[in-house]
Amino acid sequence: MKDLLNKFEDYLLSNLPTIKSFHPHFEEAMGEMLKAGGKRFRPMLLLSVVNSKKPLLVDNSLKVALAVEFLHTYSLIHDDLPSMDNASLRRGFQTLHIKYDEVTAILVGDALNSEAFNLIANASLHNDIKIELIKLLGHNGGLNGMIIGQAIDCFFEKQKIELEKLEFLHINKTAKLIAASLKMGAIIASYSEQTQDELYDFGIDLGLLFQIQDDIIDELESSEVAGKTTQNDSFKNSFVNLLGLKEAMNSADKLADKCFQNLNNFDKNLQDSLLELLTNYINRHKKYNS
Amino acid sequence: MKDLLNKFEDYLLSNLPTIKSFHPHFEEAMGEMLKAGGKRFRPMLLLSVVNSKKPLLVDNSLKVALAVEFLHTYSLIHDDLPSMDNASLRRGFQTLHIKYDEVTAILVGDALNSEAFNLIANASLHNDIKIELIKLLGHNGGLNGMIIGQAIDCFFEKQKIELEKLEFLHINKTAKLIAASLKMGAIIASYSEQTQDELYDFGIDLGLLFQIQDDIIDELESSEVAGKTTQNDSFKNSFVNLLGLKEAMNSADKLADKCFQNLNNFDKNLQDSLLELLTNYINRHKKYNS
Repeated sequence: MKDLLNKFEDYLLSNLPTIKSFHPHFEEAMGEMLKAGGKRFRPMLLLSVVNSKKPLLVDNSLKVALAVEFLHTYSLIHDDLPSMDNASLRRGFQTLHIKYDEVTAILVGDALNSEAFNLIANASLHNDIKIELIKLLGHNGGLNGMIIGQAIDCFFEKQKIELEKLEFLHINKTAKLIAASLKMGAIIASYSEQTQDELYDFGIDLGLLFQIQDDIIDELESSEVAGKTTQNDSFKNSFVNLLGLKEAMNSADKLADKCFQNLNNFDKNLQDSLLELLTNYINRHKKYNS
Repeated sequence: MKDLLNKFEDYLLSNLPTIKSFHPHFEEAMGEMLKAGGKRFRPMLLLSVVNSKKPLLVDNSLKVALAVEFLHTYSLIHDDLPSMDNASLRRGFQTLHIKYDEVTAILVGDALNSEAFNLIANASLHNDIKIELIKLLGHNGGLNGMIIGQAIDCFFEKQKIELEKLEFLHINKTAKLIAASLKMGAIIASYSEQTQDELYDFGIDLGLLFQIQDDIIDELESSEVAGKTTQNDSFKNSFVNLLGLKEAMNSADKLADKCFQNLNNFDKNLQDSLLELLTNYINRHKKYNS
């Protein structure tokens, strides 16, 4: 996995967007959040799936993995804007609207969004494959995916919503792009349609698991730091606030069990690849109730 | 042309984005600016070129024409945001950040951007064609096209820039998407590569002509209305402010001559289609110095 991650990081650094213009900082701003790091979780899911069946196609898939990272990064830049999360730090760096201005942050996000699709169109893969990938990214990253999730998150920021709606929010905001990343890898690697769909469903569970874990960690950390639970922070729609800490931990454990259980559906190579990824990315598993 | 326009309007109205969610207004907001009208200039360029050679492919091209309108509309929504033009009206309607809020305006723009590429991927055309169309839209609507144009426009809003830079700005901000719309039509209609490129170049001239005309009209209208010239409005980078009204009119006339001259390069059918469009859309031609 380390090899794949290094390969992706190298590729990203040598393929940062270049812009021919006299704008004093736009090109720099375009690369800023991409270089700032992050876990590269989505591109790694995609590349690991490809690698498990068609290692020779990993190089041709790097542009697609980069596209997924572009789309994810644009969403972070826009989520951080003053009218949304109003965040001044991201990945340890100043957010773009703080370092430059809001115009730059909006336009860099817009450019990364369009460029994601342009990258896929320019990958060295068969056109039939690339069209499928663009549909998947467009659907899951778009209005009936990531964006409606974010819109709901912002709109209901100060109103308590039911568990079912909270799940809908996070399935759309987070889980669908994770699920799409896995399925994109499966399409490139020519896994069967059944495996493609199973990987997608697996990704939805995984995305939800991540979100519940994040909420739990937020709660535990703020309890430790502030000596109080964020239960009192009554307006944030989180799984912990809705279910209580203990029940949220139970849900996380149950979902983690389900994810690891469902790994058994996959070929041995795919199982191994995913398992390696999961133990790297969700090493927090089972911490709660063990 | 009227038939094509009606066909496009009908298609647009029956293909407004639908969203399955409990968000109280997001779906409505997605359709708002699309329904609000506008000239439909870019989709009409695309469809007219297709119609001039392959009328039977017009129906299959509607999704692509809609994609171009989605991309254009997202750019207007984001341009109107408080941190950019801070406009409260667009196409005679309240802008989205006024009617709803800034979050909605940003996210509707983001969704239209991604969905434009998804639409093309879902068109009933050969995958090889669709990949070419996505590359063209991604390139000309993206970081080395529309977006860097807008970034430069915003950044240099209060500094006078040279003519060459002003042209660079408007070629990117406006002309490239117009040029791409023509070329996309040409690709669908299987025009030769030479004609595709000539149409693209023609579109760049046409886009610049539009911008100069807009600047002139702004100047004339504000002179009539306010009894003063916008010459005094010294910070706006416009062709009129840079060249003076008379010289701007000369430039517009020269560019219009060039456009009409270059029409002769094209097949008779294509000439006729474009001529009909141009007389409808730039009927202001030759008003200045005649």
